[in-house]
Amino acid sequence: MSGTNSERELIAEGPAVILVEPQLGENIGMVARAMANFGLAELRLVNPRDGWPSEKARSAASKADHVIDATKVYETLEEAINDLNFVYATTARERYGFKPVRSPVTAAETLRKKFVEGAKTGILFGRERWGLTNEEVALADEIVTFPVNPAFASLNIAQAVLLMSYEWMKSGMADLGQTPFDAVQQRPSTKEQVLGLFEHVEEALDARGYFHPPEKKPKMVDNLRAVLSRRSFSEQEISVFRGIIRSLDKFPRRWPPKAKTAEAGGVEEHDGDE
Amino acid sequence: MSGTNSERELIAEGPAVILVEPQLGENIGMVARAMANFGLAELRLVNPRDGWPSEKARSAASKADHVIDATKVYETLEEAINDLNFVYATTARERYGFKPVRSPVTAAETLRKKFVEGAKTGILFGRERWGLTNEEVALADEIVTFPVNPAFASLNIAQAVLLMSYEWMKSGMADLGQTPFDAVQQRPSTKEQVLGLFEHVEEALDARGYFHPPEKKPKMVDNLRAVLSRRSFSEQEISVFRGIIRSLDKFPRRWPPKAKTAEAGGVEEHDGDE
Repeated sequence: MSGTNSERELIAEGPAVILVEPQLGENIGMVARAMANFGLAELRLVNPRDGWPSEKARSAASKADHVIDATKVYETLEEAINDLNFVYATTARERYGFKPVRSPVTAAETLRKKFVEGAKTGILFGRERWGLTNEEVALADEIVTFPVNPAFASLNIAQAVLLMSYEWMKSGMADLGQTPFDAVQQRPSTKEQVLGLFEHVEEALDARGYFHPPEKKPKMVDNLRAVLSRRSFSEQEISVFRGIIRSLDKFPRRWPPKAKTAEAGGVEEHDGDE
Repeated sequence: MSGTNSERELIAEGPAVILVEPQLGENIGMVARAMANFGLAELRLVNPRDGWPSEKARSAASKADHVIDATKVYETLEEAINDLNFVYATTARERYGFKPVRSPVTAAETLRKKFVEGAKTGILFGRERWGLTNEEVALADEIVTFPVNPAFASLNIAQAVLLMSYEWMKSGMADLGQTPFDAVQQRPSTKEQVLGLFEHVEEALDARGYFHPPEKKPKMVDNLRAVLSRRSFSEQEISVFRGIIRSLDKFPRRWPPKAKTAEAGGVEEHDGDE
């Protein structure tokens, strides 16, 4: 199912997202939505330009009401991080200081580790136009920065929060290849099924004089079998192929070919010379 | 330095981003910006609701003009992917089919590998409100889906493009070594060749009344296409399959079936209920 689903588990834990002097309510709302998408829930605003609450923020949050409703407002960054144990500052610019600079993946792993240990953490995001001041960065423990196109490096605040939230979610997964749902399980075919396919195809083709001239037949059969076996078709695939062959083999055409298909018949490659 | 910097190297390569029937110019612009942030440059639009070019898109792209200027518009999804070798469909919903479902990390690694091998690739993104249809997903090789909060799963289109673009960029940083080529070199097929196979098989089957009852035809076609596309057949494989179908389709049997093959014909599984 897509979209918001109130019957599913609502994940709402992890680092606080702290926006320093955000200007547009729309951006705050999109930040809330991105957080909700990836299981974060604690939003803190330092001195938002247009005040709080904000109807524009609620509207842009697309029903991430649990984030909007719990948002707290602070007058200074110091107050906003007072109760936290470990804080990242996000920045696109190189800073002069000594602070370790981490990728989003490493930062998310660090935040996850501290979360598991029971520490309270946070991530700072700067103003829309010019980010965090050096003094604000100085309040953080480490810096996180994004791997961007050097010639086109500006991420907006909601995008930056989205990427950090996404990495946070991934850091909690055992396997990065894990997906919320999977394809239909395919049963591997047995050799008997593969040979059944070979014989079925070959007999149907033979009955039409496909293997011509006769002395070339062994090589043509070899090639045909190579093509039909190299993908290790599943039981279901073999079953579908045999259904196709049976239908084409058994029943006469009821209608003449359409022009399009007749024209498409130019690819002929069964002479075994590949 | 943050922001756009024309003196730095502009990365502009990799998979095409294909938006199917996007509605808002703002979203198209934010998609272009997200692509530019992470080094992608080829944007394709299928039947955009408000036409193209779009001033709203250009404005929302925040100077990602190289992406906006090169954007191409197509009337159908088939035309938009005809020249590509390998295509991902993004979806939040579980689909019934055979297609492998990948995480963004795995998908980006696959796209990077194919890029290094010289294949042309693309990623499909659906409409703002309801994504891709099953028929559209059927045209892709594999599915990619995002690890989201189950109770708050809706990503907007620009967010989804941002995450895939970000993973694309990361896949290039991790993969500094060359990916070795396979021993036997197969040319990847184009979507035009895959669609040609679909139409060839379907017409030949239709002419025999295979799709029965008629109301089940769309589902049966879906399943057939899923089976015929999930392996990303090479040009050579498609050519062989078409040779088989053409032979079975065009020529009548000269001899009655042998007992063995007739007996093997018990596997019938084309009713689309898998």
